[in-house]
Amino acid sequence: MAESSRLKVGVIGLGSMGFGMAGALLRAGFAVSGCDVNADAVARFGALGGAGAADPVAAAQGADVLIVVVVNAAQTEAVLFGGAAQAMTAGGVIVSCATMAPDAVRGFAAKAQALGLQYIDAPLSGGAARAASGDLTVMGSGPAAAFAKARPVLDCIAAKVYELGDEAGTGAAFKIVNQLLAGVHIAAACEAMTFAAAMGLDLARVYEVITASAGNSWMFENRVPHILEGDYAPRSAVDIFTKDLGIVADIGRGLKFPTPVAATALQMFIMTAAAGMGRDDDASVARMLAGLAGLELPGPKG
Amino acid sequence: MAESSRLKVGVIGLGSMGFGMAGALLRAGFAVSGCDVNADAVARFGALGGAGAADPVAAAQGADVLIVVVVNAAQTEAVLFGGAAQAMTAGGVIVSCATMAPDAVRGFAAKAQALGLQYIDAPLSGGAARAASGDLTVMGSGPAAAFAKARPVLDCIAAKVYELGDEAGTGAAFKIVNQLLAGVHIAAACEAMTFAAAMGLDLARVYEVITASAGNSWMFENRVPHILEGDYAPRSAVDIFTKDLGIVADIGRGLKFPTPVAATALQMFIMTAAAGMGRDDDASVARMLAGLAGLELPGPKG
Repeated sequence: MAESSRLKVGVIGLGSMGFGMAGALLRAGFAVSGCDVNADAVARFGALGGAGAADPVAAAQGADVLIVVVVNAAQTEAVLFGGAAQAMTAGGVIVSCATMAPDAVRGFAAKAQALGLQYIDAPLSGGAARAASGDLTVMGSGPAAAFAKARPVLDCIAAKVYELGDEAGTGAAFKIVNQLLAGVHIAAACEAMTFAAAMGLDLARVYEVITASAGNSWMFENRVPHILEGDYAPRSAVDIFTKDLGIVADIGRGLKFPTPVAATALQMFIMTAAAGMGRDDDASVARMLAGLAGLELPGPKG
Repeated sequence: MAESSRLKVGVIGLGSMGFGMAGALLRAGFAVSGCDVNADAVARFGALGGAGAADPVAAAQGADVLIVVVVNAAQTEAVLFGGAAQAMTAGGVIVSCATMAPDAVRGFAAKAQALGLQYIDAPLSGGAARAASGDLTVMGSGPAAAFAKARPVLDCIAAKVYELGDEAGTGAAFKIVNQLLAGVHIAAACEAMTFAAAMGLDLARVYEVITASAGNSWMFENRVPHILEGDYAPRSAVDIFTKDLGIVADIGRGLKFPTPVAATALQMFIMTAAAGMGRDDDASVARMLAGLAGLELPGPKG
């Protein structure tokens, strides 16, 4: 509490992840100001005791630590370098959470440094539920002094903070390796479940057997229940993976390094988005395949 | 023990899986005869107290339960229907473990029935270590009477016996769904680790972070240590997945059901086999990619 009382924290982006993090910080006694393009989210944040801000500059005003929890590099650039960074206290620490290409992150870190600020490349693993309970994983990189200053904030939002190197971009690279695997595993889970349906198997039994076998993955276990329940309300959307596997594709092309499995999974997400399901849950890849092949998957309950 | 003393068991195939199963049966007091094309394996089996047999017909002579643990459908057909099935006791149960297309399994079950025998479609999950300790998973299907008769044997070799339906072919279909996922996850693990190497990341740290994150899979956790140790001695060979993902491709083509991710993973295993590593550990897909791109992976220890 002594430490939390000394640090002023800004949060830009009060979507499901940012809102959960901001709530965890408020419960720990931090002074938190936050903003979002969605006025409802800002109002709910105010109801929890947060200081709702009209825009990123207001949210960042006087902040010692500024957490940026937006979708991608373009949004990060827009919200940070349109005045918000300059509004922070001198030597303040930017904690940037969007999944981005390492090169983009390095550019932002250099801009922050030129403004006399510190930058932690801090992509996250774990969904909204873990954000709300302060149990995220941070795949962080940046100067040790920045980690030291932001430590009380990071420890409040995350169960595990990896310090993966001194340089911005390293955290992003670890995260993109995770996203390569996660995206491929979701596409594979959807392909396997619809393939099982095409063979006429009992899908609930397939889930039971596979989760106890060597074909299991974190994503299979997490996403296949959405298919079994016919529930495609977005916990994480198809378009997240058209973005993240798109970053994998860009990096691979730049390095001249082939990623054929990830490239194929990317096409599956693009096909699903093309069929109008880009904002639906990423398990919708199964609906896309079932639709193509005229298969029936379980419908919504009730 | 009372039950084990009444059932005579034959085992055709004393490779790492069959040898482990035969050993577990011997320890439980079953009378077991076994054969293999490798005379060394038969001699080791004899040293454990088993009855070494010269050929499949001798191994099957008078067997109440005959376990067939060979590589594929062609071998299963050759060892079973060249006289071995006819050598069993009337009403005996064939427990067939190779991963095969459901159609092939249905054909074998019909042949067995015509000979007055019962047939359990019993593909396995779990490697040699779990075979040796009697902790396999059986994805079984077949008549209830066959399961009842073979129950003491199945309970001895497996920690978990799924009874997935009355018909031969259903167990095979579940297993091939598992293999689709397993094969894709191995290819993805190899692609992700070499992609990480291309970005200059510390591979041991990548393993630590991913196994604690949403990108994890059973196969990532199991196979990536082979890459980190530079040890490609075959625990399971590349050629197992050229076969099993080939079965996925055949089924998909037959059903007119697309499996793009599995098809891409199959090409990765074929590329690895083409590069001369078909009999090496399936984590060799990483060596294939590293070789293409001129990347250095960890070498063997010591």
